[in-house]
Amino acid sequence: MSAPLLEQCRQVAQAAKDASRVLALTAGRRREEALDAIADALLQLSAQVLEANAKDVASSRAAGVAEARVDRLLLTEKRITAMAAGIRKVASLPDPVGEVIEGGVRPNGLRVSKIRVPLGVVFFVYESRPNVTTDAAALCLKSGNAVILRGGSEARYSNAAIIAAVSEGLAKTGLPAACVATAPSLEREAVDHILGFGDLVDLAIPRGGEELIRRVAAAAKMPVLKHYKGVCHVYLDAAADPETAVRVVVNSKCQRPGVCNAAECLLVHADVAASLLPEVAAQLRSQGVELRGCDRTVALVPEARSATPDDFGREFLDLVMAVKVVDDIDGAMEHIRRYGTGHTECIVTKDWAQAQRFQREVDAAAVMVNVSTRFNDGGELGLGAEIGISTDKFHARGPCGLRELTTTKYLVLGDGQVRE
Amino acid sequence: MSAPLLEQCRQVAQAAKDASRVLALTAGRRREEALDAIADALLQLSAQVLEANAKDVASSRAAGVAEARVDRLLLTEKRITAMAAGIRKVASLPDPVGEVIEGGVRPNGLRVSKIRVPLGVVFFVYESRPNVTTDAAALCLKSGNAVILRGGSEARYSNAAIIAAVSEGLAKTGLPAACVATAPSLEREAVDHILGFGDLVDLAIPRGGEELIRRVAAAAKMPVLKHYKGVCHVYLDAAADPETAVRVVVNSKCQRPGVCNAAECLLVHADVAASLLPEVAAQLRSQGVELRGCDRTVALVPEARSATPDDFGREFLDLVMAVKVVDDIDGAMEHIRRYGTGHTECIVTKDWAQAQRFQREVDAAAVMVNVSTRFNDGGELGLGAEIGISTDKFHARGPCGLRELTTTKYLVLGDGQVRE
Repeated sequence: MSAPLLEQCRQVAQAAKDASRVLALTAGRRREEALDAIADALLQLSAQVLEANAKDVASSRAAGVAEARVDRLLLTEKRITAMAAGIRKVASLPDPVGEVIEGGVRPNGLRVSKIRVPLGVVFFVYESRPNVTTDAAALCLKSGNAVILRGGSEARYSNAAIIAAVSEGLAKTGLPAACVATAPSLEREAVDHILGFGDLVDLAIPRGGEELIRRVAAAAKMPVLKHYKGVCHVYLDAAADPETAVRVVVNSKCQRPGVCNAAECLLVHADVAASLLPEVAAQLRSQGVELRGCDRTVALVPEARSATPDDFGREFLDLVMAVKVVDDIDGAMEHIRRYGTGHTECIVTKDWAQAQRFQREVDAAAVMVNVSTRFNDGGELGLGAEIGISTDKFHARGPCGLRELTTTKYLVLGDGQVRE
Repeated sequence: MSAPLLEQCRQVAQAAKDASRVLALTAGRRREEALDAIADALLQLSAQVLEANAKDVASSRAAGVAEARVDRLLLTEKRITAMAAGIRKVASLPDPVGEVIEGGVRPNGLRVSKIRVPLGVVFFVYESRPNVTTDAAALCLKSGNAVILRGGSEARYSNAAIIAAVSEGLAKTGLPAACVATAPSLEREAVDHILGFGDLVDLAIPRGGEELIRRVAAAAKMPVLKHYKGVCHVYLDAAADPETAVRVVVNSKCQRPGVCNAAECLLVHADVAASLLPEVAAQLRSQGVELRGCDRTVALVPEARSATPDDFGREFLDLVMAVKVVDDIDGAMEHIRRYGTGHTECIVTKDWAQAQRFQREVDAAAVMVNVSTRFNDGGELGLGAEIGISTDKFHARGPCGLRELTTTKYLVLGDGQVRE
């Protein structure tokens, strides 16, 4: 008879903790080699991965899952090649472990340095896309952290096959298999058990829908790196350049509407609403976007539906956009304060003073000027890759890459100094 | 009839939140001027502060509080002058707000910078010493944060008089009084109410005994900057210099035994226990330290009491020290892993390889070589001042100064870039 689930979960977490101690002391080159070995193993085992994936895809289709979601799940040779390339990309990033952040010599001769060290064990809870499995494993390993993965049940066979490849890569490099562990069961109960191990797991990262994230945050006894949702605004200022306005709004809304840094609401300065809004609306509609506007919007864009109060502050994650005409930048910032989620906010303007005010006064992880909101992303902002985006203010805010998966340690060297 | 306590608490927190928005946008010079005005007001109102303090001291004495604790509460002209000097010292530190941490130009021309911005509202819950009131207010104001203070009831009159001086300084500079707010009641319930406002308060900092900290951490709906206790070890390696060993151990234990970075346990390599331990023990005993040792210790130091299992991992906060002879550095690190609290750990050695191993492998906020544990302190490590020491790994670890009271914001400037 197998041990009760709680005990199984604890064993997995304890093994990950033990592995994390080994991993934290490996040289960066060793972690790089492990990632390369994992990428190799993934390619070598691609037939098995595709076979496993076909089972998941068949189950999803049999269960009547929408084809768009099935496509998120689907793996192909090409996608597996991209996953392997992603692993190698992470491997090639600068090693955050041991990086000296601050330091110097104190007046009494103490030599002080503050360095980055791994957090320990990350519990990564995610949905759907199997490529996230290798992304998360690569980011955690590169930053010297062990990770416990818990993917969605719809990708169970795919994830198991991918993790088999990961284990093979780890074994080849002589690193403990528990560096990349998996939850012992896909039952929700197992997630709750692991979230209860505040002494063994150092960080939980939920990636998926808002419901999943809230559930993880509520149960976690350790810090959680998260954002609940991204209700991002684009504000077209009185001094907006019309062409930039169209480009930025359309890209922010349409380039990938289902993600957190896509814009959900358009704010337009009253002085330019008549001149700008019809053209912007026409371009959005030509991309299939449904508009839900305030009264002033509907007066200028008759095709827009009247927005309900619920449409503001809503994360549509779809080709739908709320539109509001505001009196001025204060009205825009007040709206953002009330309805924004502190994720990504953008102003389009040629006016230096307005741009400055907006960037100073808007409180969000990223505040953009004349740039699509879609750029609030670890890769785009220069982090190399990201494990998620945080809208919390503590530890890390915005896209989180390798550095954000570390904590710090003070090293103090002396020759017998004491305090007087 | 006054509003119910919950409502009063919410009003205080909301006012602090509103004030924090004003404060976050003030120039650094303005915050400096406010701190100078507060220091001036404190000196001008020192007679009132002393009078209020006399009432607190009288109450404590009447309640039979030990004279050592009464002394912690006691203010004098000299102590008030030191408090004012402390405020000016914080005023003179570099402004963390707006500091550019990282940045650059992306290949597509986006200009990205990551800057420090204030967290918002800090809820600071503390015990006893009234000087902590001005320390906390100064650190929060300097870093652009509003603060809600909740001091101990034993210092109620002193704190009220000090906060009256703070308010006068704020008023003189034209900053909202709610930048430094106080809990509307000293009832424990008020603390719990405020800890429930995850939407209004951005960070809770408890400073005091372990019980207080655990209570705050359990109730807080926002992040908590904390350490429960500091069980710090000094390990005397086989290659320890005898004179350094004595100096470091005695200072770590005795210089101020009641604080978190004082050493609580001495570990000695078996090879040098016979030659080192008697002298170290004699020096500790001459300072009045009671030793509680393992069997091997007692064999070498007959005056030592036999340690109970509870004596290891215990925070004595007093002139008591646990002592254990270990077989080697692995034994020392294993003991630290088991009993340490990740606060401050020290090795005394002349052996480069042992020092390196210890600093690499010991997982703590600060790992020292040949230096008193007492140096793990914001002032001593170069932070200028500290609001507390964190043993958590998330956000900040170790002494927390002005920078640790900030979060970050990405500023992204472009000219119409969109994602392809």
